[in-house]
Amino acid sequence: MLFQLHPQLKKDSIEIGRFSLCQLLLINDSQYPWFILVPERMDLTEIYQLSEQEQILLQQESSFLASTLASCFKADKMNIAAIGNLVPQLHIHHIVRYKNDIAWPAPVWGKYDAVPYTEQQVEKIKIQVTEALSSKLIN
Amino acid sequence: MLFQLHPQLKKDSIEIGRFSLCQLLLINDSQYPWFILVPERMDLTEIYQLSEQEQILLQQESSFLASTLASCFKADKMNIAAIGNLVPQLHIHHIVRYKNDIAWPAPVWGKYDAVPYTEQQVEKIKIQVTEALSSKLIN
Repeated sequence: MLFQLHPQLKKDSIEIGRFSLCQLLLINDSQYPWFILVPERMDLTEIYQLSEQEQILLQQESSFLASTLASCFKADKMNIAAIGNLVPQLHIHHIVRYKNDIAWPAPVWGKYDAVPYTEQQVEKIKIQVTEALSSKLIN
Repeated sequence: MLFQLHPQLKKDSIEIGRFSLCQLLLINDSQYPWFILVPERMDLTEIYQLSEQEQILLQQESSFLASTLASCFKADKMNIAAIGNLVPQLHIHHIVRYKNDIAWPAPVWGKYDAVPYTEQQVEKIKIQVTEALSSKLIN
């Protein structure tokens, strides 16, 4: 079945690009550099439902993303999570956290309403991130 | 360096056993079947700091644990996360969630104070889980 992004993820995010397995999205919340990997497979809700080979690919893309974001944004901590209680389509959060961000040390979910980026901010972050991730981004 | 469990994790949890890479802990909170994998490596805070081989092992242990817990406890959803904003030692949450659990659909962290298990409950859950996971548990 052709992959389609869940409408809620589409609404909340900005498309950045694609790795071999996953779409890379930026959550439209300027309070944290908050990215999401979505494996382009339909009807999956859990990581263990991917094939073993796909799980390894996801692990590689996740670690590449997390380490790149950590250095790019000088993170104090990365928060990585597959939750999906509200949006069932399998997606994995990668959130850059700072000891002085608005929600620290709590997790970000359900904490504060999103503060959307300006168009300028989106352009800047897109350029910064696609450059840093260029060795594995397909488009 | 010899692996030592972070004192906060020790305080909050009950040891269940060990896989090849990780210790398996049960968080002492009877409100959710809540397990933790702790790679037995010192001074790591992020998954990407493990070697590539260890990352694959972690992925395998995590998926084995998550799928086993999901079927054992008839989960509506698994929540899997590496957060570590409060306890820096790398540890990965595996939480069985139900649509009628006390925190649903919110993530569990920082939501409700833990309600410790009785000794009898711990014994029961230990037996249930070690049996289900026996093919990969070392001890």
